Amino acid sequence: MEKKELLYEGKAKKVFTTDDPEVLIVSYKDDATAFNGLKKGTIEGKSAINNQMSNNLMKLLETKGVPTHLIEELNERETAVRRVSIVPLEVIVRNVAAGSLSKRLGLPEGTMMKRTVLEYCYKNDDLGDPMVNEYHIYAMDLATEQELADIAKMAFTVNDVLRNYLKDLNIDLIDFKIEFGRTSDGTVILADEISPDTCRFWDSSTGEKLDKDRFRRDMGGVEDAYQEVFKRLMGH
Amino acid sequence: MEKKELLYEGKAKKVFTTDDPEVLIVSYKDDATAFNGLKKGTIEGKSAINNQMSNNLMKLLETKGVPTHLIEELNERETAVRRVSIVPLEVIVRNVAAGSLSKRLGLPEGTMMKRTVLEYCYKNDDLGDPMVNEYHIYAMDLATEQELADIAKMAFTVNDVLRNYLKDLNIDLIDFKIEFGRTSDGTVILADEISPDTCRFWDSSTGEKLDKDRFRRDMGGVEDAYQEVFKRLMGH
Repeated sequence: MEKKELLYEGKAKKVFTTDDPEVLIVSYKDDATAFNGLKKGTIEGKSAINNQMSNNLMKLLETKGVPTHLIEELNERETAVRRVSIVPLEVIVRNVAAGSLSKRLGLPEGTMMKRTVLEYCYKNDDLGDPMVNEYHIYAMDLATEQELADIAKMAFTVNDVLRNYLKDLNIDLIDFKIEFGRTSDGTVILADEISPDTCRFWDSSTGEKLDKDRFRRDMGGVEDAYQEVFKRLMGH
Repeated sequence: MEKKELLYEGKAKKVFTTDDPEVLIVSYKDDATAFNGLKKGTIEGKSAINNQMSNNLMKLLETKGVPTHLIEELNERETAVRRVSIVPLEVIVRNVAAGSLSKRLGLPEGTMMKRTVLEYCYKNDDLGDPMVNEYHIYAMDLATEQELADIAKMAFTVNDVLRNYLKDLNIDLIDFKIEFGRTSDGTVILADEISPDTCRFWDSSTGEKLDKDRFRRDMGGVEDAYQEVFKRLMGH
């Protein structure tokens, strides 16, 4: 499979067309950004880690009934995926308060949520990805009621599957952000990536952060944290 | 009925206890604030207008099956109400984009919403009343699922009733904020007030703003706008 044209370049990956109109190639980058692009940097080795980790987790999710865009890993950094049109929502699932939720609701970071929290943000860089609820989503035609019901169900399944899987690796899944896309026949499937860029992973014993917060908060040891999560996942 | 102790003083009203532990007296003030108290001022005559307008609209809502805290208007500025413990949510219903929604979602003010939008904000001055969704509400124990279902149903009824009523007065109901309270037996009823402080009213013919936005945005004619809405309501 060959890359043809560059279709899109985002903060952390490039997407290329192929000879097959239904297939794209995602090429991961080592570039890292935070705070809506205000902070920029590089995390060496991230592209290979995120690509392979995301593929492995998506493979696992497929076995649990969550359809994903994954077709085939092409090499360390590149993967063939089904072409979708992205639903313009960041779908966020939270088990423990952290980051923006802690700040916004005054809940100390690390507070266990009494119920799993599902949030939607409208993907729009100019507006800073504002939080929206179901009524906003319908009013703005971002998704239909059926699509949103499917998305919510899949998001909770992703949480259950990943939480259990990571628990065995001594990692707590604090929260994560996923995105969904519509295939040419209108089916909604899991797209984008699942990686330390898009999840908060805390070591279950020490509470050590093993994710992009080390980059966001200038904590050092960023590469080591990505490598550590990767090692645990791939050794499993 | 006599006022006993000052129980609470808010931005726009004082609340007093009475001899009956289930009954409070609300005393409206002419004070006006905006932007979480950053802007302060006075709107002459507002106390009498808001008190009487709110009571009249709550009477109307009672006839349409919405239980409210209203017991009896005592005088121009004061009303006896049922004592409730306030559910710490601002319940916002929007028919047309305006104010914070326009800014947050990039929808020009005046954009008709394709679907009526219901929003919840967590009443917390220190946090700036952040928007929350149902999952946050349950996770933080702000209301139960049954309470929130009742609240949503009542909020949409309030919208339908007020929208129709105001249409006949040549007023468009753009959006409004209401609050609910729990009585001693746990029933959730409509509390607080319904007035130009808490609703956006636009003249249906001219689009002229007849509400607190004239104060928030230094548009002048604040008192005249309140008087105009009051006149239309009381002449009806």
